[in-house]
Order: sequence, then C-alpha cells, then structure tokens
Amino acid sequence: MEGNLVDVLAKIYVTLKESVLDPQGAAVSHALHALRYDTVSDVRIGKYMEVTLSAGSEQEAHQLVRGMCDQLLTNPVIEKYTYELVEA
Amino acid sequence: MEGNLVDVLAKIYVTLKESVLDPQGAAVSHALHALRYDTVSDVRIGKYMEVTLSAGSEQEAHQLVRGMCDQLLTNPVIEKYTYELVEA
Repeated sequence: MEGNLVDVLAKIYVTLKESVLDPQGAAVSHALHALRYDTVSDVRIGKYMEVTLSAGSEQEAHQLVRGMCDQLLTNPVIEKYTYELVEA
Repeated sequence: MEGNLVDVLAKIYVTLKESVLDPQGAAVSHALHALRYDTVSDVRIGKYMEVTLSAGSEQEAHQLVRGMCDQLLTNPVIEKYTYELVEA
C-alpha cells in the first residue's frame, strides 16, 4: 500500500555550546558540593525532548526532526543538538 | 596504586512520569502544528544533564550519581530518570 506511514519517536538532546557560560550548571555544581559531592568537577544542563511523529519514510522522519530542531526546538546561536530515531 | 580515581561523565535524562501532565510539551506540540508539522502526535519535555565527576571505582560512580539524582537533580514525585556513565 503506497504511502503507509512509519511512527517514530525522536529523542532530542539539546546542550549549550562549549563556549557558552552555563550559570544553571554552575549553580547545580555548587549545590552538589554543598551536599558533599566533592568530586564533581563540572555540570552542564540541557533539554531532553521526546517527539512522537509519523512520516512517509525514515528519511523523511530525519528531515522533519532536523527541521523542527532548526526552526523551533533549539536556539542555534547558543545551543547544539543531537537526536536519535527509534520506533514509536 | 591504591585509590586511583576514575573520571566519568554521567549523562542523566530526566522526564516527567507518564501520569503527569506536560503543559510545556503541549505548548511545543501546538507550535509545531502551527509550523505545519502536522504528523507530530506527542511532545514530552525533560532535562538532560552532563555531570563530570571522579570516583574510586565504577561502582562508586554509580552510587554517587544515583545519590545526586535522588537528592537534588530530580523530583521523585513527578519525575523519573535514567543515566549512563561514559569515560570523561
């Protein structure tokens, strides 16, 4: 049957670029040290998103996810992202 | 040499429990539909954290990371988490 859709789950990991200061991460690191987690040397906080979608093919799913990330889900000036597609 | 430390990077994924409403996810889903991503059926937003730490052993690293998650990094009432340890 032409055009049967594939349902996919996109797992998207958004993190700040290395050059960008992460005050939230610094605050969490400070709090962890206060809780005696002295061996913590760095904390970076980002976003984890799960998007369920259907697409005509796996290739189209990749295009859709990259489009969403570039257009809405990430701020390309300060953030970078990786993602993986799994069957929904 | 007794007591040499292992440096690890903990990748922590925090998501809302299924039973918990995700207004942020609903808002993003709505925005994606407005951008013509009509095949999106669900969006869940969570936190992605990278914590760099050293530990006496891999086992100790697991204990430390679980401790941090339970004590500070997650809210066990509404959130669940998974993590993976990789060499820093």
